[in-house]
Amino acid sequence: MCKKIHYVILFGLYISFLSAQTRTEKDLLGEKQIPNNAYYGVQTARALENFQISGMTTQFYPDYVKAFAMVKLAAARANAADGRLKKERLAAIEKACQAVMDGKYHDQFLVDLYQGGAGTSANMNVNEVLANIGLEMSGHKKGEYQYLEPHDDLNMGQSTNDVYPTAIKVALLLHNDKLIKEADLLAKAFHKKGDEFKDILKMGRTEGQDAVPMTMGQEFHAFGNQLDAEIATLRKVEVFLCEQNMGATAIGTGITASPGYAEKVATELAKITGKPIVMSKDLIAATSSQQGFVIYSSALKSMAIAMSKISSDLIFLASGPRAGIFEINLPALQPGSSIMPGKVNPVMPELMNEVCFKVIGNDLTVTLAAHSGLLQLNAFEPVEAIAMMESQGLFFKTFPLFRKNCIEGITANKSVQDHYMERSVGIVTALNPVLGYEKTTELAKEALQTNKGILELIREKKLLTEDQIKKLLDPASLTGQK
Amino acid sequence: MCKKIHYVILFGLYISFLSAQTRTEKDLLGEKQIPNNAYYGVQTARALENFQISGMTTQFYPDYVKAFAMVKLAAARANAADGRLKKERLAAIEKACQAVMDGKYHDQFLVDLYQGGAGTSANMNVNEVLANIGLEMSGHKKGEYQYLEPHDDLNMGQSTNDVYPTAIKVALLLHNDKLIKEADLLAKAFHKKGDEFKDILKMGRTEGQDAVPMTMGQEFHAFGNQLDAEIATLRKVEVFLCEQNMGATAIGTGITASPGYAEKVATELAKITGKPIVMSKDLIAATSSQQGFVIYSSALKSMAIAMSKISSDLIFLASGPRAGIFEINLPALQPGSSIMPGKVNPVMPELMNEVCFKVIGNDLTVTLAAHSGLLQLNAFEPVEAIAMMESQGLFFKTFPLFRKNCIEGITANKSVQDHYMERSVGIVTALNPVLGYEKTTELAKEALQTNKGILELIREKKLLTEDQIKKLLDPASLTGQK
Amino acid sequence: MCKKIHYVILFGLYISFLSAQTRTEKDLLGEKQIPNNAYYGVQTARALENFQISGMTTQFYPDYVKAFAMVKLAAARANAADGRLKKERLAAIEKACQAVMDGKYHDQFLVDLYQGGAGTSANMNVNEVLANIGLEMSGHKKGEYQYLEPHDDLNMGQSTNDVYPTAIKVALLLHNDKLIKEADLLAKAFHKKGDEFKDILKMGRTEGQDAVPMTMGQEFHAFGNQLDAEIATLRKVEVFLCEQNMGATAIGTGITASPGYAEKVATELAKITGKPIVMSKDLIAATSSQQGFVIYSSALKSMAIAMSKISSDLIFLASGPRAGIFEINLPALQPGSSIMPGKVNPVMPELMNEVCFKVIGNDLTVTLAAHSGLLQLNAFEPVEAIAMMESQGLFFKTFPLFRKNCIEGITANKSVQDHYMERSVGIVTALNPVLGYEKTTELAKEALQTNKGILELIREKKLLTEDQIKKLLDPASLTGQK
Amino acid sequence: MCKKIHYVILFGLYISFLSAQTRTEKDLLGEKQIPNNAYYGVQTARALENFQISGMTTQFYPDYVKAFAMVKLAAARANAADGRLKKERLAAIEKACQAVMDGKYHDQFLVDLYQGGAGTSANMNVNEVLANIGLEMSGHKKGEYQYLEPHDDLNMGQSTNDVYPTAIKVALLLHNDKLIKEADLLAKAFHKKGDEFKDILKMGRTEGQDAVPMTMGQEFHAFGNQLDAEIATLRKVEVFLCEQNMGATAIGTGITASPGYAEKVATELAKITGKPIVMSKDLIAATSSQQGFVIYSSALKSMAIAMSKISSDLIFLASGPRAGIFEINLPALQPGSSIMPGKVNPVMPELMNEVCFKVIGNDLTVTLAAHSGLLQLNAFEPVEAIAMMESQGLFFKTFPLFRKNCIEGITANKSVQDHYMERSVGIVTALNPVLGYEKTTELAKEALQTNKGILELIREKKLLTEDQIKKLLDPASLTGQK
Repeated sequence: MCKKIHYVILFGLYISFLSAQTRTEKDLLGEKQIPNNAYYGVQTARALENFQISGMTTQFYPDYVKAFAMVKLAAARANAADGRLKKERLAAIEKACQAVMDGKYHDQFLVDLYQGGAGTSANMNVNEVLANIGLEMSGHKKGEYQYLEPHDDLNMGQSTNDVYPTAIKVALLLHNDKLIKEADLLAKAFHKKGDEFKDILKMGRTEGQDAVPMTMGQEFHAFGNQLDAEIATLRKVEVFLCEQNMGATAIGTGITASPGYAEKVATELAKITGKPIVMSKDLIAATSSQQGFVIYSSALKSMAIAMSKISSDLIFLASGPRAGIFEINLPALQPGSSIMPGKVNPVMPELMNEVCFKVIGNDLTVTLAAHSGLLQLNAFEPVEAIAMMESQGLFFKTFPLFRKNCIEGITANKSVQDHYMERSVGIVTALNPVLGYEKTTELAKEALQTNKGILELIREKKLLTEDQIKKLLDPASLTGQK
Repeated sequence: MCKKIHYVILFGLYISFLSAQTRTEKDLLGEKQIPNNAYYGVQTARALENFQISGMTTQFYPDYVKAFAMVKLAAARANAADGRLKKERLAAIEKACQAVMDGKYHDQFLVDLYQGGAGTSANMNVNEVLANIGLEMSGHKKGEYQYLEPHDDLNMGQSTNDVYPTAIKVALLLHNDKLIKEADLLAKAFHKKGDEFKDILKMGRTEGQDAVPMTMGQEFHAFGNQLDAEIATLRKVEVFLCEQNMGATAIGTGITASPGYAEKVATELAKITGKPIVMSKDLIAATSSQQGFVIYSSALKSMAIAMSKISSDLIFLASGPRAGIFEINLPALQPGSSIMPGKVNPVMPELMNEVCFKVIGNDLTVTLAAHSGLLQLNAFEPVEAIAMMESQGLFFKTFPLFRKNCIEGITANKSVQDHYMERSVGIVTALNPVLGYEKTTELAKEALQTNKGILELIREKKLLTEDQIKKLLDPASLTGQK
Repeated sequence: MCKKIHYVILFGLYISFLSAQTRTEKDLLGEKQIPNNAYYGVQTARALENFQISGMTTQFYPDYVKAFAMVKLAAARANAADGRLKKERLAAIEKACQAVMDGKYHDQFLVDLYQGGAGTSANMNVNEVLANIGLEMSGHKKGEYQYLEPHDDLNMGQSTNDVYPTAIKVALLLHNDKLIKEADLLAKAFHKKGDEFKDILKMGRTEGQDAVPMTMGQEFHAFGNQLDAEIATLRKVEVFLCEQNMGATAIGTGITASPGYAEKVATELAKITGKPIVMSKDLIAATSSQQGFVIYSSALKSMAIAMSKISSDLIFLASGPRAGIFEINLPALQPGSSIMPGKVNPVMPELMNEVCFKVIGNDLTVTLAAHSGLLQLNAFEPVEAIAMMESQGLFFKTFPLFRKNCIEGITANKSVQDHYMERSVGIVTALNPVLGYEKTTELAKEALQTNKGILELIREKKLLTEDQIKKLLDPASLTGQK
Repeated sequence: MCKKIHYVILFGLYISFLSAQTRTEKDLLGEKQIPNNAYYGVQTARALENFQISGMTTQFYPDYVKAFAMVKLAAARANAADGRLKKERLAAIEKACQAVMDGKYHDQFLVDLYQGGAGTSANMNVNEVLANIGLEMSGHKKGEYQYLEPHDDLNMGQSTNDVYPTAIKVALLLHNDKLIKEADLLAKAFHKKGDEFKDILKMGRTEGQDAVPMTMGQEFHAFGNQLDAEIATLRKVEVFLCEQNMGATAIGTGITASPGYAEKVATELAKITGKPIVMSKDLIAATSSQQGFVIYSSALKSMAIAMSKISSDLIFLASGPRAGIFEINLPALQPGSSIMPGKVNPVMPELMNEVCFKVIGNDLTVTLAAHSGLLQLNAFEPVEAIAMMESQGLFFKTFPLFRKNCIEGITANKSVQDHYMERSVGIVTALNPVLGYEKTTELAKEALQTNKGILELIREKKLLTEDQIKKLLDPASLTGQK
């Protein structure tokens, strides 16, 4: 798909071809020519041939590239701590990782996000690129792997099966910060509207039917509080992402890793990321278990459910202008129709809903991938990463648009709301404690049949004194704020 | 769960115990005492011990029991046709199957709908019960399997792997008839309302916003037509259920079945069921493939999507009575609230929505089961059957309630609709072809700002002659009916 | 559906008819005759007419009935605490609630679990039954509501909109205890097998391919630990169910409730249930938000994903006996096939998988219902309750069967595992740190091509000393246990 | 997201800024400067500001851009046919549409695929670009809309509400051809393998357990036939995409369209696309109904289910090499592990599975969007289009890789299969018709306990003559091919 990116890749390959400068690399399957200006190596080159699916590569999400560098840096430091990785090699790796964490060399992370092999291609792409950056930065040439080797040094005591899910977790954590930052601004915008509308009395509705009074401020604060609860949940479930399996290597037994390495790498990774990352207690369970992803994805789904419901509420409340509820105005962003002059549509809540539907679909993708694991590994982690990172990206791109182009500009049609309040029989509920359900039911019925107001009937029938009326129907009391 | 049913089962077992009359049966795993009044045998008895999950057994759906009898009858006839099954044994089987198809002995089909073994327990329950009924009906005693054997006669040339999915397909077809019958009555109810409301002009709405005029009759006919389209689809996808794999036996190679048997059993089954049942061209593919179930379940999902959307529309249109759209009245079925006097809720569309949400969830269950098959068989067909039969049952139980208690009693609030029509600027769209989009946009804007009517402005500005106005704004023309 | 139950209901109605003893009750819609032996009243009677969908009524889940009684008891005590509910009425309500909590009168809770009206019918059924029990227990006759009124006393300061979701939450909490108890026994069974198999060395597998050695004990402990993690999550998310909205009444403003009542009812409910139940900080948000259900349902889904994966692993490992992996034996529960003699199938893991697929489908039902809420309420809570309680029930019914009939009886085919270990080249990974990835890759390649063993090659080539071999390939070291 | 594309857009805007050559356009919301080299106009410019979500714009799918041009061309011809659109304007539109259908100007279709407004931005982008291309091609300057107007000419008798879903349908049809072409090649590859393997006898498996013999050819033909059935279904459901609502305009009443236009545009569109496109009988129902998308998406899901199951089968069959089933070899594409030397993974079936999981998730997105429609329109069609086009793209990109890099290179491990056949007791099933189920069950039991072969036992016990053995156990007969 993503044609542009293909062209960029093809162009790069073409340039290398012209320069006719390649180096020879080899692996289990044989030798291969690699463009000399490429930092990646033979295994990346194979993956580029095997997987050209979506046009979206590792570099599509810069935080994902950075996450890999963070994991590799932590592993190198843990390996150096017990003397297994030599100091000069650590120094080269540190420089390389830092460069990538600073946003450099990202164009070398070229493997399609979709890939078989449980992420091996992505991991080897990272190992190769970091090795070659490290080589150059310490005075060697690309490909001189005798000084820094993609497998033996960059992947020391590691396996794709611990590196890859851990890098995904770190990427999700970095994205989660971005997402929460934007969600938080959006929640604040709801609360600000809640304050602005705090004195506007309106009819609350249940099941689409007129219920009892509330303030518009309460309604918007409730939107904000619901979003706050989703944010809190997204923060709370980070603990599932912070438990990782570095040190597990292939299946959790830690084969090839040094004793004590697993604990150390967790500590290092916690330092580098600033997140409370810990080692899983059972590295074997942790290597096949997808619970962390399942729970995090479920929390994204939960936020999508909440945002979709809020968006639909706004569409309902803004319906009209002449034949709808029309309690609120959403900002007009663009002519609403290619045929109906003057029509202005709720484009932002609609967009928000679309994003939510994609996020919920993505959660199902995670469910399917997670339940399909086999024995000691789940080979479908790549599509889980794709689904969750897409969802996060959709959220943190859409939230600021929704906030600025919709929520912040919402205004109330107070006259419409007053009109509803005056005509409603919903206030009769407030009289239950004084008159009893049976009596108030009769009153409501009479009001609806005669088209009279509730207050009018109460006064006619002298059911309450003016004092009682004043007390019972005082807005603050009616809306539970006293 | 379903306690009552458990009690019935337990009570039955208790009675047999008291009478101390049992017969001995045996299988691969050894001997077992069977209550003498039981028509089922040793394998059913084992299944009763292994699976007590949901309390819902084969007999929960009478059509499902009948479907098994139909399949066994067809198989027996096909086996007799080439002389492999003796005439007197066929006669016994025919009597037994007919009795079950007539609704008798259903209380012997006791296996929980949930079961491992890809339906083996359900099939053996059927084989055993039919054998014992057949034995009794031809003058033998239960358990005298030398005269009619559950495996060798009742399961002759068959396997659970062809009988079970075929019985499910027949059951789904029988249910589909019921479902379509009720759906059809519901669609007709929508159309009847469509006729009733054909002269009521109202505002159409897109994205919740006032759009252009239509008649309420058009709206309700459109509901009916959408349901008609779903019905047609449910009928159309029957072809996927009509292709079955009888004759496949264990894996599709037809081992133990006679040549020509597969074709014959399809013909017999078509005769018995009255449905155009055919043999799959590739019995091996057909034995593992779940496509028939997947497509049928998707059609149920499609109907759920349509009905959920229609239900939500009704809730929207009936919202009010004072602070909502209130274009229509739904019949008041029960006091709407335990706290709010006089409130009447859209309980039927809500119920319909709930049912739709369960149906859509059930489709996901089918998806998960279908993709989880392994090699020559899908062992998860039982839960697919559970999901689809539950969905069908929910539909054919709910449709008549929705029809009688909601659709048939809907009335229009014509004054509300007139009010919306008078105030709306939506008719301005009709002037596009004469005035052009830019001019009509200005008109719409002025109308909204000045709160004037469109017609008022047109006359003020002399943009159209009275003749043009009459022609352009004639209701039939406006609503595309001329 | 559930015919038996229908019959029970019909029979009850018939009996009352015969006795011709009815009392007259009335509501907003008019008068109605109620069988005199019925504890329910007029609104329940209407609901029985409106909703006959699934045959599963409130009483289908005894804990659900009890949960309602707990909520009503807490509300009554809170109302009595500030003097609004009279002492003698509180006494009557306490007796009635206690009786229901003790398992009595459950046959009066007859409303179908499927219902429109956001649970109003269920709540009114409870109010009516408790009122009439209370009346009888305090010396009055059923229907003498002047002494204890379903609305004014039993529903005092309450609304379906706070009672109903709170009762669901309490029911889910009670069920969660049951579920966790069974899940815990199942996890312990895995761990026991883990201990039993701790000395059996076997090949670990990733992506279906031979990977590196592990012990069978590690594998089963990992199953146990994964389940433990799901249990811990189900316990952890109880906090979402413990936050409830009693005191919200209709929409969260607390209309008709006394000041301070909301806090009190939470305290009382916490005491009665023994769960740390608290009042939501924003009762308006809490009344429309479905987050508690969404998160809890997601945790059920997460457990389903884990159990489905474990079940499929067992099916894989038990495949055979002659043409499969055949590392383990599952207990033979029943003849596996109606056609293939001697075949024994993995019926319990298959059953477990089916249950998991239904649970995951149910989670989608919750998702759909939750996102479809409108403004101040979600009218689709009934189907969320249905979906989640069904899932819980499936789990706590299936877990003990899965444990007793499968896990506890699993045995290892040690000779098969030894055979795999001897032939595998997977141990070559252990030599990476000594020989380097390139060298070990060549060794692996040669072993596969020559069909020689890795050790054989190492000795031939004198790549390692016997001491090194002993140290590197010591089982404890190989499997990370040293 | 898609950064590259953002840069391209930003770069374009920057260039225009530098040149300081803009033209002024205006709409309902006011005036706006448009870069003079841009073919799009004011409404596109607004959309570019409102929606920058995914970085994927209309041009991401060239067939989608072409589909819009086809729809506009058909509409223009239908409008010209009754004289409403002038000939010279038709000529300009025809040139513009043809150019776009030829792949030109695609870089002007810049609106993000995610958008609120039910596709209005996409439609207006198309109207504006085609108008300006048409203007230039007929000797005018961009922006001289008096000669060709985006609304009045390009959108004549149209609305986003008919153009947008119709363009999606045409795009899906074009993609469906591509998808089917690749799926067909894949199915053929399976069948070719089926022919290649037709003489290899192997054990069939049900529930993971040894069942009865089959040929490997049958197994691969069954894969092919399952895929063929999915292809046939995808072709069959095209009828749902071919029914479209052009002529409906805003809500289906055809306001602003000429009588007879709707029929004509369907005819023209059929001619242009070569697909049997027809007008929906109820344009009102058709404008809100999403059934066409729901059913088509379900068919994509069905294909995903089938492909996921087949992929998992391949992973199962290729497991090993030493501790797995190892009946087949998948081509080795890349070193399988960053840690385990010599390991080669089933990367292609894994990739295929990942794609299937995304497709199934996308189907849920369509479900959610489809059920969320409101009254006369579904505003969430954009995300349905995104989901389905993504799914199609994933399929038609992955199928050729899966075919070339996996299926075509599969080889059989005949010696392994022979070994399984020799040891299996599964052939005992073939003796049922002669010996009866009870006898064969005993034989199977004895064989498993004594580790003897079935044939050995039969001969020992003289149960069959050599002739009978030869006939019953002849491969062709055993596998149902005689």
